[in-house]
Amino acid sequence: MKTIAEIKLLDHGYLRFIESWGSDERIIEAARMSTDKGFQGWDTDMRLLSYLYDHKHSTPFEMAGIVVEVKAPLFIFSEWQRHRTQSYNEMSARYIPIPDEHYLPTIERIMEGANTSTTNKQAQGVTGTQMTWSKAVDAQNAMLGAYYTTQRAYAGLLALGVTKELARLPITVARYSKMRASANLRNRLAFMTLRSDPSAQWEIRQYSDAIGQLVKELFPRTWSKFAEGQTK
Amino acid sequence: MKTIAEIKLLDHGYLRFIESWGSDERIIEAARMSTDKGFQGWDTDMRLLSYLYDHKHSTPFEMAGIVVEVKAPLFIFSEWQRHRTQSYNEMSARYIPIPDEHYLPTIERIMEGANTSTTNKQAQGVTGTQMTWSKAVDAQNAMLGAYYTTQRAYAGLLALGVTKELARLPITVARYSKMRASANLRNRLAFMTLRSDPSAQWEIRQYSDAIGQLVKELFPRTWSKFAEGQTK
Amino acid sequence: MKTIAEIKLLDHGYLRFIESWGSDERIIEAARMSTDKGFQGWDTDMRLLSYLYDHKHSTPFEMAGIVVEVKAPLFIFSEWQRHRTQSYNEMSARYIPIPDEHYLPTIERIMEGANTSTTNKQAQGVTGTQMTWSKAVDAQNAMLGAYYTTQRAYAGLLALGVTKELARLPITVARYSKMRASANLRNRLAFMTLRSDPSAQWEIRQYSDAIGQLVKELFPRTWSKFAEGQTK
Amino acid sequence: MKTIAEIKLLDHGYLRFIESWGSDERIIEAARMSTDKGFQGWDTDMRLLSYLYDHKHSTPFEMAGIVVEVKAPLFIFSEWQRHRTQSYNEMSARYIPIPDEHYLPTIERIMEGANTSTTNKQAQGVTGTQMTWSKAVDAQNAMLGAYYTTQRAYAGLLALGVTKELARLPITVARYSKMRASANLRNRLAFMTLRSDPSAQWEIRQYSDAIGQLVKELFPRTWSKFAEGQTK
Repeated sequence: MKTIAEIKLLDHGYLRFIESWGSDERIIEAARMSTDKGFQGWDTDMRLLSYLYDHKHSTPFEMAGIVVEVKAPLFIFSEWQRHRTQSYNEMSARYIPIPDEHYLPTIERIMEGANTSTTNKQAQGVTGTQMTWSKAVDAQNAMLGAYYTTQRAYAGLLALGVTKELARLPITVARYSKMRASANLRNRLAFMTLRSDPSAQWEIRQYSDAIGQLVKELFPRTWSKFAEGQTK
Repeated sequence: MKTIAEIKLLDHGYLRFIESWGSDERIIEAARMSTDKGFQGWDTDMRLLSYLYDHKHSTPFEMAGIVVEVKAPLFIFSEWQRHRTQSYNEMSARYIPIPDEHYLPTIERIMEGANTSTTNKQAQGVTGTQMTWSKAVDAQNAMLGAYYTTQRAYAGLLALGVTKELARLPITVARYSKMRASANLRNRLAFMTLRSDPSAQWEIRQYSDAIGQLVKELFPRTWSKFAEGQTK
Repeated sequence: MKTIAEIKLLDHGYLRFIESWGSDERIIEAARMSTDKGFQGWDTDMRLLSYLYDHKHSTPFEMAGIVVEVKAPLFIFSEWQRHRTQSYNEMSARYIPIPDEHYLPTIERIMEGANTSTTNKQAQGVTGTQMTWSKAVDAQNAMLGAYYTTQRAYAGLLALGVTKELARLPITVARYSKMRASANLRNRLAFMTLRSDPSAQWEIRQYSDAIGQLVKELFPRTWSKFAEGQTK
Repeated sequence: MKTIAEIKLLDHGYLRFIESWGSDERIIEAARMSTDKGFQGWDTDMRLLSYLYDHKHSTPFEMAGIVVEVKAPLFIFSEWQRHRTQSYNEMSARYIPIPDEHYLPTIERIMEGANTSTTNKQAQGVTGTQMTWSKAVDAQNAMLGAYYTTQRAYAGLLALGVTKELARLPITVARYSKMRASANLRNRLAFMTLRSDPSAQWEIRQYSDAIGQLVKELFPRTWSKFAEGQTK
């Protein structure tokens, strides 16, 4: 039934579907427990689903969930792991030398971020000017330089015989890591509400929107309620 | 009553006591709810506390807690924030340029880690030799070089007008951040069980042991049970 | 500072203040962690508190909390204990014979419930008539009869030598029990949002409003935001 | 694959399998995330599973779970719902008149409980004698009398036009209710550890053992570790 196997994200990342449980129908069945009835068909039960969603009767949405594997830069994991009802297991540089892969934003991303951002007034104040193509190229080079230097330091420390848990100190938050993460649909909806919002950082929004694609395919009626809220 | 205000940790970190709630007596009072009795005095109630602790009747230990402020490198926060019943708010490089402070392990720490570790066989295999003072100095220099380069990149990106949320990409996991964290005593005990264990990384163990000092002062009878378990 | 020690509720119940932690200021301090600033004074920080509350940035509200002791009928505890981030320890009929105290609604409560309820159409359909004073007296008598009979059965079973855990089977959900309960302010606010709502059962609303009195006294600025939401 | 559809329990109860997610293999895959490896085959990975289980590395066990529907007396639900990482939706007497079905322990259960219990000294002290067949029959009759009286009161209150939320007051904790409940395997294992223990009440042990049958069929290798712990 599930046709999305993997969604490529950013320059080296992905969101991979592992499995799901529950369904829109199961959410209704759980909600109907209170009156000892089952699923009645969508002709009548779409209204119930709307009611549950609109009035924040959230517990029935805990009856379904999605397990994914995610490859993303460390700074995205820091934000993602704030969502504490999620279960996850992450790759650890204490145990293995983690690969030399870093997130490099595109020229367009760097320019658009700087020129439209309302959250970066201080930085813009420093220059008092627009972000140009040439400055964005300089920015990419500065990042690449940092990635090159830190990788060389990391490899050098491992070669010197420094323990992996200490050799990892020069690793940047742009470096890719991986996790398996399981969460129920209530958690996924709360995540998307915060992380698909325009105020969220563009990079995590890509992951959140990818979760949205899975929700849309697996739980289309719950998705339609979420999407309705987004366009308001 | 509380005399510990702040414990200095590593080269720039600290654990600062903010406040606490509950007490050993309150734990007993909660446990005695089941039989509608109150605290009876430690002559009889130390046995009850021991019983609760030894038989993992953990819910009464949720009736007390400690709020702290922590300054620690990012790699420590990643481990700490796995403990999901904790509440926390952390400094964010999305909102402010975070200070140029990094954790630099001492020569002794680098040497001892490499020479005694049983978890770093691959790295030692690379050299086939002992970690020496001179290699440890090289290691420190490699770290310092990475910190210097990444700070220059970070400052440069901000100066170019790159948004703070992207300019932070070259930041290393050795960089210090801060958080306020509130957790009940059950969470604190679980944290110490894992993070004051010899298999935990030495750096997080310093923070965990500092939590232990607060527990010892604030909840001396619960601490005595924990300490008993440690020496077995 | 705290002047409310105990609030009497229903015919035999109460909400007793045990202790609290945190304050409106502490909530601000935690929120300001993200930009490494502290509390700035309410002239500027009331706006921040409003922003946090209105935009559902809920984690700073986890930095404060209230511990209470509650005496309430069992049917209220069933609803209360749905709020899963709460910690609690309850009196147990497995361990002690629980007292012969039951909740008996007043004549006014029985009449008002039946005549204004929009949630009891089927029951009203049975009679097709208004609830009268005399019927409400009959209702009270039916309840008292059930309480008397079940207490006699309970005491009789204990006297026969039946174990407490089985002798409790005839206990009704109107019977009073007790619990100690600790919860952070975020949980308390979510509880009040659901349980001080007009759609909540009148009995649990009394307890929720009592929690509200504590919140008002302990966290007056957070309370003002909650109260603002209530009158909308 | 799942062959157990429903397990009958007590006189009117059941545990019905709804669905599950994850597998023993998925637990391993999640655990191997830390070293970026996948499942290697049980020849090598049974050792890893044992290690995780024995050292309480519990998060990988959150990658699997079971959804069930449960019919049980109210006093069992009170105990079950203490397990707070579980998600559930329960039948509510606020919304529907709940059926006239009560748990009646058998003569054998009443006798065995009283004669072997070490937790009922006070009750036995009342009589100073053994529980006999004839006393156990008296006990059953006392329970049946209470069930009959309370059902008559309940039906009478509804007929008088009392709202369902108040008419339910005479309901006993022996009355059957239903819930849908979803929980990950870590929660299920913690539940079984407490509730399949000899110190747990016999009635909830039946439900816990039924959960055990599902775990055994769905996650046989995790089950073997749990069972090993039980026989120690």
